[in-house]
Amino acid sequence: MLDLKKGNIALLLIDIQYGLDNGAFYGGNRNNPDAETKMMTILQQWRKTGKPVFHVQHSSTNPESPLHPSKPGFQLKEGFHPMNGEPLFVKQVNSAFIGTDLEEQLRNKGITTLVIVGLTTNHCISTSVRMAGNLGFETYLVSDATATFDRIGINGEQWDAETIHQTTLASLHNEFATVVFTKELLEAL
Amino acid sequence: MLDLKKGNIALLLIDIQYGLDNGAFYGGNRNNPDAETKMMTILQQWRKTGKPVFHVQHSSTNPESPLHPSKPGFQLKEGFHPMNGEPLFVKQVNSAFIGTDLEEQLRNKGITTLVIVGLTTNHCISTSVRMAGNLGFETYLVSDATATFDRIGINGEQWDAETIHQTTLASLHNEFATVVFTKELLEAL
Repeated sequence: MLDLKKGNIALLLIDIQYGLDNGAFYGGNRNNPDAETKMMTILQQWRKTGKPVFHVQHSSTNPESPLHPSKPGFQLKEGFHPMNGEPLFVKQVNSAFIGTDLEEQLRNKGITTLVIVGLTTNHCISTSVRMAGNLGFETYLVSDATATFDRIGINGEQWDAETIHQTTLASLHNEFATVVFTKELLEAL
Repeated sequence: MLDLKKGNIALLLIDIQYGLDNGAFYGGNRNNPDAETKMMTILQQWRKTGKPVFHVQHSSTNPESPLHPSKPGFQLKEGFHPMNGEPLFVKQVNSAFIGTDLEEQLRNKGITTLVIVGLTTNHCISTSVRMAGNLGFETYLVSDATATFDRIGINGEQWDAETIHQTTLASLHNEFATVVFTKELLEAL
């Protein structure tokens, strides 16, 4: 049974932006089509508890990227904008902790535990989860509130999104984070 | 064709320690049994060029770990000890950049490009490669000079070491690093 009562806990939402709907740019065939619905349910339930929420938005330095700040895809998806002074961190690399003062802000607020949702499993989520765990935060990643795309391997082979997703979670679980499902998380809130 | 002539390049060796021979502790069935032979060839050729070498050693905080400093497995494998003043960084988490002054030392020496080898693909290597790339180093990872173990997935399924290795490399390549083979690297040195 998940115990979220110990420590000072925050929700961290990463890169929930329209640009990531451009599957063709990112490898195609995204898994977990319901991930945003799960993220929204978590966000709404979380806000009812009064616990803090932190938002992260990706600003690509690549002018071709759907997440370049000049593109409409840079925008956060509907319903995922910060409310009531929730802080927003804009990052230019995969890790939410590099080039931002996210770590400092979490420490200043005495946050010891993070629940992470967002996109994509193997890139910005995996990198941010790894750093969160290595920086000493007790970290939870919600497996059905993240998703990814197909990926070409180094020998040209095609890896499907679900295999990339599951192998990424297998490498993170019990090493950097505890991987949970939305249902378990909501029951523990 | 790999071009390693631009920039100021260093070799970074991560966690080449006897403790990682304890396959049972880490998930078993390691892939790439020849990885250490490749690492040794790279190290020997690299030293002949006079380019800098940086070493990283894992010191686990878990008393049960084969990499706890009280255990014989903490030792670097034969032939992988620093020579002629090459710096050694001891870390306690997966990332070689967290809790060490590795980044500062690399910047002080004007290093812009890193070639990374060591163990294990999906844990300390992936985490260190992600941070190296996100910190702005041009990063190369040598695919046959790293290796990993089988891993249990979040639904209890078994993932074999080679699948974990290849999916990890697929996620890193062209996002955080350029993944290369030992042969290409040696030809470009």
